[in-house]
Amino acid sequence: MIQAKGYGATSKDSEIVPLEFNRKSLGESDVLIDILYCGICHSDIHTARGEWGAAIYPVVPGHEIVGKVMQVGASVTKFKVGDIAGVGVFVDSCRTCNPCKKGMEQYCEEGMVPTYNGYYRDKLTLTYGGYSNCYVIDEKYTLHIPQKENLAGVAPLLCAGITTYSPLKFAGVGKGHKVAVLGLGGLGHMAVKFAASFGAEVTMLSTSPSKEADAKKLGAHHFALSTDPAQMKALKGKFDFILNTVAAKHDMNKFLDLLTLDGKMLIVGIPPEESAYNAAKLISKRRSIIGSMIGGIAETQEMLDYCAAHNIYSDIELISAQDINKAYERVINSDVKYRFVIDMKTL
Amino acid sequence: MIQAKGYGATSKDSEIVPLEFNRKSLGESDVLIDILYCGICHSDIHTARGEWGAAIYPVVPGHEIVGKVMQVGASVTKFKVGDIAGVGVFVDSCRTCNPCKKGMEQYCEEGMVPTYNGYYRDKLTLTYGGYSNCYVIDEKYTLHIPQKENLAGVAPLLCAGITTYSPLKFAGVGKGHKVAVLGLGGLGHMAVKFAASFGAEVTMLSTSPSKEADAKKLGAHHFALSTDPAQMKALKGKFDFILNTVAAKHDMNKFLDLLTLDGKMLIVGIPPEESAYNAAKLISKRRSIIGSMIGGIAETQEMLDYCAAHNIYSDIELISAQDINKAYERVINSDVKYRFVIDMKTL
Repeated sequence: MIQAKGYGATSKDSEIVPLEFNRKSLGESDVLIDILYCGICHSDIHTARGEWGAAIYPVVPGHEIVGKVMQVGASVTKFKVGDIAGVGVFVDSCRTCNPCKKGMEQYCEEGMVPTYNGYYRDKLTLTYGGYSNCYVIDEKYTLHIPQKENLAGVAPLLCAGITTYSPLKFAGVGKGHKVAVLGLGGLGHMAVKFAASFGAEVTMLSTSPSKEADAKKLGAHHFALSTDPAQMKALKGKFDFILNTVAAKHDMNKFLDLLTLDGKMLIVGIPPEESAYNAAKLISKRRSIIGSMIGGIAETQEMLDYCAAHNIYSDIELISAQDINKAYERVINSDVKYRFVIDMKTL
Repeated sequence: MIQAKGYGATSKDSEIVPLEFNRKSLGESDVLIDILYCGICHSDIHTARGEWGAAIYPVVPGHEIVGKVMQVGASVTKFKVGDIAGVGVFVDSCRTCNPCKKGMEQYCEEGMVPTYNGYYRDKLTLTYGGYSNCYVIDEKYTLHIPQKENLAGVAPLLCAGITTYSPLKFAGVGKGHKVAVLGLGGLGHMAVKFAASFGAEVTMLSTSPSKEADAKKLGAHHFALSTDPAQMKALKGKFDFILNTVAAKHDMNKFLDLLTLDGKMLIVGIPPEESAYNAAKLISKRRSIIGSMIGGIAETQEMLDYCAAHNIYSDIELISAQDINKAYERVINSDVKYRFVIDMKTL
């Protein structure tokens, strides 16, 4: 085992505190990563606090990881010591089911191995996340980071980035399309950047007028206040796609109305309650609601390469490890532009 | 105006009674059809009883119409006297919007003109449906009926047929696909016939064990009892498509679970309450829910030609006009195999 240190929760009521723990030892196909930066995703908070079912404590959260390769196993060929590497939401999968064989490991039929709060495929060894000095991971599930600078702004691409890139690509979003992005947070701000970069005409839909200037700075061409019935009425039937990042209860019908014939509502957030829609809203214009979850390893690499080529980064606030608890409160209050990233030097 | 007779409702509390009324006169692009058969669709009942909002009484229902052309307007080229012709759910549309220009008149941006309980595009003249001796309709919205026999079994194709044919075609259902059909009624029985005919492996999902034999006679390869948790569990992740014909409240999550990666739930029924789903059910396997409404004129003609070529008819119970009220009660109790069709000779 490898002695590691980091920050995590010791119980569902625990704050995020300094911890020492053991990581799995370096296998022959593994790389050992010295973590430089790790983003804070809202799911870190849900998991650490046991809000998504009982967690396996201690939980060391973090699945938006960028670092430097310190050591490689005997059979490793894709990475060498000194490479900049990334880890996303999962670190292994069955490798044999149809989704795995097609490079869609996130939909592995046996379940992907989550980067934290889960078991490796031996069903014994726990995974601990990126709020830590190091990570040990099979090279097959490790990403190459082509970016040379602003590595802190790269870290959130590993979850927030791929979560929005993948459905936009899957839906074929591009030039000539009108796309609305619902919710301007960690996911929403990446969705705006990607949709605009793909050539679409992008509208930010938000409940908060104060977000208009920010949305436009991120690349949105238009802004509409979703609480204003007149603005919503004027947008009826206008969008080819809505990328819906909202993870709280909201009125689906109001937004389905904004889709044109064959329009698609792409959902990536999971509200705690069920989502309800009026079937007539779908049927009357052959609209659809499509779910999407992160992306496979190959697609995540494609997204990182795309971001490097197009100078796309997450907008972040860099924090010290000691400020994680404060950051959690601000994430819960949607008070972050747009992702907190922990500077692991402060560990 | 043309003097017509038929059966309809005079108020929301009225039974279906004999009526006389005026149809629009024969325009130069119109055909006058002597109605032979008209199917009874559940929406006839909802409309006649004012359950879908206030109706315009008297309502003469019926939009599954087959008859013989008696007279043609001066500019008519597609039909001649003596031709067998059909009328479906709509009889006109704006003809200029994008959906109309693409042959998807059912999604006309100005709203299609419904076959009954609506106004023609003059916004003055009322439409009356097919529980009647005749219909006057623009040749552009009239279907050629290639079938020579069993014309009563053709009538329901104009609504129940196209409503299920269109989404299966849109989704690309064919050989190698596993398709479940949810609900064995007027729509469901056509869905089974089409899906099987397209080469898919078809499973009927029903709450009623008594329907197994019938489902298999219609072409279903398998049958599963949706009320049996063990059978549902065994089918998790198995279907590429579910054609969901249920128009009553039901548990969407139970059926979404049965879809494989990228599986599609095609909905054609409109339950009176909102439908609810757990977003994780969509996101975890990139599943989608897609609405679909009848079909355009060109696709309806394609479907009729396909049915003629493949010997596909609706299974029906032929009734006299005097028995419409009894038939309505049986439709409400799902006691029909699988469509009532009125023999207009009995008018």
